[in-house]
Amino acid sequence: MVVKLKDYIGSGIQPLDATALERARERMESLTMPQGSLGRLGEIAVRMSGITGQMPPVTGKKAIVVMAGDHGVCAEGVSAYPSSVTPQMVMNFLNGGAAVNVFAKHAGADVICVDMGVASHLSHPSLWNYKFGFGTKNIACEPAMLREEAEQAVIAGIQVVKRLVDAGYRLLAVGEMGIGNTTPAAAMTCALTGASPDEAVGRGTGVDDQGLLRKRMVVRKAIAVNDPDGNNALDVLAKLGGYEIAGMAGVCLGAAMYRVPLIIDGYITSVAALAAARLNPVAASYWFASHRSAESGHSIVLQALGLEPILELGMRLGEGTGAALCMRIVEAGADVLGSMATFESAGVSR
Amino acid sequence: MVVKLKDYIGSGIQPLDATALERARERMESLTMPQGSLGRLGEIAVRMSGITGQMPPVTGKKAIVVMAGDHGVCAEGVSAYPSSVTPQMVMNFLNGGAAVNVFAKHAGADVICVDMGVASHLSHPSLWNYKFGFGTKNIACEPAMLREEAEQAVIAGIQVVKRLVDAGYRLLAVGEMGIGNTTPAAAMTCALTGASPDEAVGRGTGVDDQGLLRKRMVVRKAIAVNDPDGNNALDVLAKLGGYEIAGMAGVCLGAAMYRVPLIIDGYITSVAALAAARLNPVAASYWFASHRSAESGHSIVLQALGLEPILELGMRLGEGTGAALCMRIVEAGADVLGSMATFESAGVSR
Repeated sequence: MVVKLKDYIGSGIQPLDATALERARERMESLTMPQGSLGRLGEIAVRMSGITGQMPPVTGKKAIVVMAGDHGVCAEGVSAYPSSVTPQMVMNFLNGGAAVNVFAKHAGADVICVDMGVASHLSHPSLWNYKFGFGTKNIACEPAMLREEAEQAVIAGIQVVKRLVDAGYRLLAVGEMGIGNTTPAAAMTCALTGASPDEAVGRGTGVDDQGLLRKRMVVRKAIAVNDPDGNNALDVLAKLGGYEIAGMAGVCLGAAMYRVPLIIDGYITSVAALAAARLNPVAASYWFASHRSAESGHSIVLQALGLEPILELGMRLGEGTGAALCMRIVEAGADVLGSMATFESAGVSR
Repeated sequence: MVVKLKDYIGSGIQPLDATALERARERMESLTMPQGSLGRLGEIAVRMSGITGQMPPVTGKKAIVVMAGDHGVCAEGVSAYPSSVTPQMVMNFLNGGAAVNVFAKHAGADVICVDMGVASHLSHPSLWNYKFGFGTKNIACEPAMLREEAEQAVIAGIQVVKRLVDAGYRLLAVGEMGIGNTTPAAAMTCALTGASPDEAVGRGTGVDDQGLLRKRMVVRKAIAVNDPDGNNALDVLAKLGGYEIAGMAGVCLGAAMYRVPLIIDGYITSVAALAAARLNPVAASYWFASHRSAESGHSIVLQALGLEPILELGMRLGEGTGAALCMRIVEAGADVLGSMATFESAGVSR
């Protein structure tokens, strides 16, 4: 029997726990600080209660899920790096040498590397294998993948979250690796938000002026050739997306299903989240935006998601690096609800 | 013999280590990520090398210095809280119940609480006592303190840093507690930058519309009565500042003297840093701005300092809370120089 996505995400995603939210808000007002003085961090803390259904919210082990996939559209010369860098960087993640590994160490988090569709045979004891293919098709000529593949890749992402939750992880971050994937991300942004390719396409990991013009042309072509239905996120994922992008959409939905807070990373991750939000709008209340990427399309997607980032550092690296940097901040924010003194307990005048 | 500030900060503050900066920049280009993709975090990492003179930069123990003082100007009704909250909150810091304590725990840092001029007798084995008085005078009527007091309070801040460095601390944050201290901070902002009281005065910990108008009037009066010399930071500190503000200016200078990176907190801390930068402009290269406070004057001061914050969370709590949240980020950023693989070592194509 083939499992369909609708079997998962219908009633499987519930709104935030209203009782926990209310108790968290009350608690917040009793703590030894002026009301509202934590700004958006206070809202993050309260939301952590609503997500987990706990007051105070308790976090357990932390994981950064890095999903990897390759992209047929690289044949159009849209990236400053060759596709061979995707598997090289996956091995770098697995060997602990990438930026996300360094940031994970400081966050006290594990890096979980998932092969969703890298165009090479990869083998490593720590690699999670959910490979759906050896890279997508070239979206400038045809759909990235079959609709059924997109659907199963989303389900795989949900299953990744279930495995992590079963293993005791209670705070997740999600990021990606896939040479060329700012192009499908930009094409999806256009399809899902109505933005123009000029707004949605940036330099990615560093194409020059000519490369930027080429990327914009490729995005226009991808949309013209595939004619995606902007109101059908699975159609957009299948025609313009990537295996890792569909998988990350599943991680976003899985976080909401299993009630674990999820920190999303940069442009590509946020596009995956936007697709997930279109599949089930309730899910977005389980996510936090980490940073605003230097990639121009990211702001468009964050606005569509209704999320404001925590960091403004002009990063554009992906891998989950921005999300990793925010894990301690989200934890610390949530912990005020459990660890701070109240005006009464500390004898501080209101 | 009275020690004068000029004996400290003349040749005692050196520019960043040019060799370490150069080596860090070279290293950064060899690491497995697209050039510049860490954005401002990459600049922070390089600067950490220049500050410490090490490549890779090594951080040791971490401390958040919270300086406390009271303000005679509270007699003008400029704060939503009574002055008695200052000592109550100092005891709360010492007992581990405040927001800064929670964030310090997550940052892996110690909170060092310094009494610079709280208007009560305070006693606690962990309190650092540098009390210069029982609160300042009311700046709406007379200078906050004597010029000599301001100078010695700055020197005390330098000595606090020396004690911390001698004890093995290698990454510092600085914050404050002082009911009413957004008013002297705003007055100092006007004197040091030429901003108007309308721009520099905000709601602090939460005064209402009438309170806001009153604060602006008080700031105008303080400037008219004291006639500070905007080109003489010690004059501004003495006439319009506070004991904890002068002490924090000293912490800023001390960080530069002893070559330890310092993360500055919100509005009041940044005003202290601006005074320190006017005493010795080279010192500013040793500091990082943590967040942009909701307090309107903060952006003016950050611009005058030439510093861009890491976080945009709309916090307005003080205590060093914003700085505490950034300690792990600065550490993680610096650690890419020591812990990441290079293109060569990881076999990743450039």
